[in-house]
Amino acid sequence: MVYDSDRRERETDLVVASQFVTPEHIRRMRKDGGGLICTTVPATAWKRLGIPYLADLFNEARGSHPLLGELVPNDIPYDIKSAFAITINHRRTFTGVTDRDRALTISQFSKMVGEALGFSGPDEELRKTFGRLFRAPGHVTLLNASEGLLSTRSGHTEMATALVSESGLIPSATICEMMADNGKALSKTAAMAYAGDNGLCFLDGNDVKSFWESLATRRATPAPGKRSEGVCQDGR
Amino acid sequence: MVYDSDRRERETDLVVASQFVTPEHIRRMRKDGGGLICTTVPATAWKRLGIPYLADLFNEARGSHPLLGELVPNDIPYDIKSAFAITINHRRTFTGVTDRDRALTISQFSKMVGEALGFSGPDEELRKTFGRLFRAPGHVTLLNASEGLLSTRSGHTEMATALVSESGLIPSATICEMMADNGKALSKTAAMAYAGDNGLCFLDGNDVKSFWESLATRRATPAPGKRSEGVCQDGR
Repeated sequence: MVYDSDRRERETDLVVASQFVTPEHIRRMRKDGGGLICTTVPATAWKRLGIPYLADLFNEARGSHPLLGELVPNDIPYDIKSAFAITINHRRTFTGVTDRDRALTISQFSKMVGEALGFSGPDEELRKTFGRLFRAPGHVTLLNASEGLLSTRSGHTEMATALVSESGLIPSATICEMMADNGKALSKTAAMAYAGDNGLCFLDGNDVKSFWESLATRRATPAPGKRSEGVCQDGR
Repeated sequence: MVYDSDRRERETDLVVASQFVTPEHIRRMRKDGGGLICTTVPATAWKRLGIPYLADLFNEARGSHPLLGELVPNDIPYDIKSAFAITINHRRTFTGVTDRDRALTISQFSKMVGEALGFSGPDEELRKTFGRLFRAPGHVTLLNASEGLLSTRSGHTEMATALVSESGLIPSATICEMMADNGKALSKTAAMAYAGDNGLCFLDGNDVKSFWESLATRRATPAPGKRSEGVCQDGR
């Protein structure tokens, strides 16, 4: 679980590495989270695959669809640009929305990300593979992580992608905002209590950010020494 | 609650008239439904406002984004075309995803639909009003209902819109698919039990369709006689 910041959305997201997503994760996200279930894409992958931001698509289409020019998202209270990219379904899904269908779309998409990062052939071939396996629009929203991750944007998209990436996994995370019963986002206190009750790790965005920055510094100036034990608040 | 058909998605959706949506409805939809929370737009309104289908936007953008040409949704198992349109947030929302924010977006959007249907000025003025109040992309997915409603398509989008429209309300419904704990959609039997337990009305798509057709026939050939009592299975 990752809380972003008191100065941003003030929201906690449930976070899973996309490669490990099962129907049970989707069930927990929709029942205990309640926000949108979205899958992050690292910049190298969305660039090679050619996955556009929805805001860019809408902006480019304003000539033929003048309404899109009126709906310009120039007043997001907590950021400059949303991470929303296109929505997809795996072609083997039925409706695309069940826990099984979304888990299939997400876990198979993470394989696609892994392939995009390691593939030495032309991008066009990657895009053809993607299109053979997936269709759009669908029921899983992709979120394009900004290039440079936490050095350029500090959203859940970038934090979750950074965590999964630093863990040596395929750098795509699946995230879902946690809601409370009072119409608002779940408070930080209530989210920490949920983490305790469910044996989950709760991370504060500021800690994720400083941990990530320390790793970046270490990578830039390699030195001997023990690897940090991480920042999980219960000591794990 | 509306079940579509054994020969289609085999899914039950929770349905509310958009003009009456409160944060409590959004909470029930995300906790007891679990699918995507979407808001329907009748054809007259999406045409006047210029709300595009997402599939059309993606298709039109395939020149500059070749990936979108690969992801063509030409193999949806239960229909020819999905109803997905753009996603929106009201500009007065904060993150856009909380129950309060989504209820605000939806109830205010229904006013926009009402205005679009009754407005005698130019469409451009309607679009400017829409853009002054809303931004895109956002956290509420709009679904464009097909022209001719149930005479052309029998999705939840058309059935819910037809029900709300025939009730004399603003013809926009907010719907959410109901999921089960086994990874699949909630079965028809379990959905009927939920309706009973919660004092909700459960409608079978075939009944909605024949009721709607009978009303259409009656409109075409006006005759005296009592109005039908409807098709709610518990007799209401």
